[in-house]
Amino acid sequence: MNKKGLLFIISGPAGSGKGTIVSRVRELAPFEFSVSATTRNPRPGEIDGVHYHFLTKEQFEEKIHAGEMLEHAKYSSNYYGTPKAPVEKILNEGKNIILEIEVQGALQVKEKMPEAVMIFIMPPNYETLLSRIRGRGTETEEVIQERMKQSHFEIDHFGNYDYVVVNETNGIEKAAEDILSIMRVENLRTLRNGDLAEKFYK
Amino acid sequence: MNKKGLLFIISGPAGSGKGTIVSRVRELAPFEFSVSATTRNPRPGEIDGVHYHFLTKEQFEEKIHAGEMLEHAKYSSNYYGTPKAPVEKILNEGKNIILEIEVQGALQVKEKMPEAVMIFIMPPNYETLLSRIRGRGTETEEVIQERMKQSHFEIDHFGNYDYVVVNETNGIEKAAEDILSIMRVENLRTLRNGDLAEKFYK
Repeated sequence: MNKKGLLFIISGPAGSGKGTIVSRVRELAPFEFSVSATTRNPRPGEIDGVHYHFLTKEQFEEKIHAGEMLEHAKYSSNYYGTPKAPVEKILNEGKNIILEIEVQGALQVKEKMPEAVMIFIMPPNYETLLSRIRGRGTETEEVIQERMKQSHFEIDHFGNYDYVVVNETNGIEKAAEDILSIMRVENLRTLRNGDLAEKFYK
Repeated sequence: MNKKGLLFIISGPAGSGKGTIVSRVRELAPFEFSVSATTRNPRPGEIDGVHYHFLTKEQFEEKIHAGEMLEHAKYSSNYYGTPKAPVEKILNEGKNIILEIEVQGALQVKEKMPEAVMIFIMPPNYETLLSRIRGRGTETEEVIQERMKQSHFEIDHFGNYDYVVVNETNGIEKAAEDILSIMRVENLRTLRNGDLAEKFYK
């Protein structure tokens, strides 16, 4: 198979619901995905190597310097990042892949791989985002305020993305279907189907 | 409602099945559509004002000169075209519209309205296209050969479109769903949702 797979980046502010949406997408249609690395502490129920690769700060910085990260970012004094090799392997095998990553990192990937399809998950409004972040009950007030400030910046720049999916209250199902439609439709773009005229004459 | 509607152009070679596909799309989700004008003779069952506005050559040329056609083309010595006013009215009302038109005309619309979303219906291969055109039994051999020649040209230039939907044998249902997905997804493009950040802060 010569055709490279498509890289879908799903991103959005903390509290936008991107994690839940991507889980639902994977239930509806199994896609290849990439496990991110992070230096933050695991939340209850999170498993190393499944939800994240949990690394120490020293381990993470070593990987950055060795050029083994496709992107990385610091949020709330923790590193988050995507190991490069597994992503390239999957794309070269002609398979599509989803990266669910933070906004800073998403823009780094777009720079390195401009053919990536960028999807921004938008919370419906300020109050909803704030109550979602508070609702987790796992963050200090200082972290919450820092995240809201970061969210403002990210929402003001969602125009850097190709698509925007609003995650309304109880909107997970619709948002997941929006993303599946984007995946279907991106495969119909003429620029990804240059071989069809050839096939016609065979 | 300030937001303009989206213009979807569905086009492809004669015999690609675009007419059947568009009918199916309209059954699945009622969309505004535009009735084309033509100078060709009605086929059995075709109704004036429903399938086409059937005009004389003189009537058609008068409309061209008056600037009342969004696009027009000549195929097999007959004119085909799209009256301009009804399309603009629907878009200004914020409604989406489908134009099912010939390839020459589609490219004219794209020039005048670059924001149009262009979908090319591709027959799966040469033999299928030929047998579909012959199967109609309504054309002379000369017309058939002319159409096949025209089809070659059109298929070689499908890269001018945004999307390509292959109409496989018995593929109407899949093709219609592809088109509905394109319509859904085009509404998710960030460039059409510049107002979302504003809504977030309200």
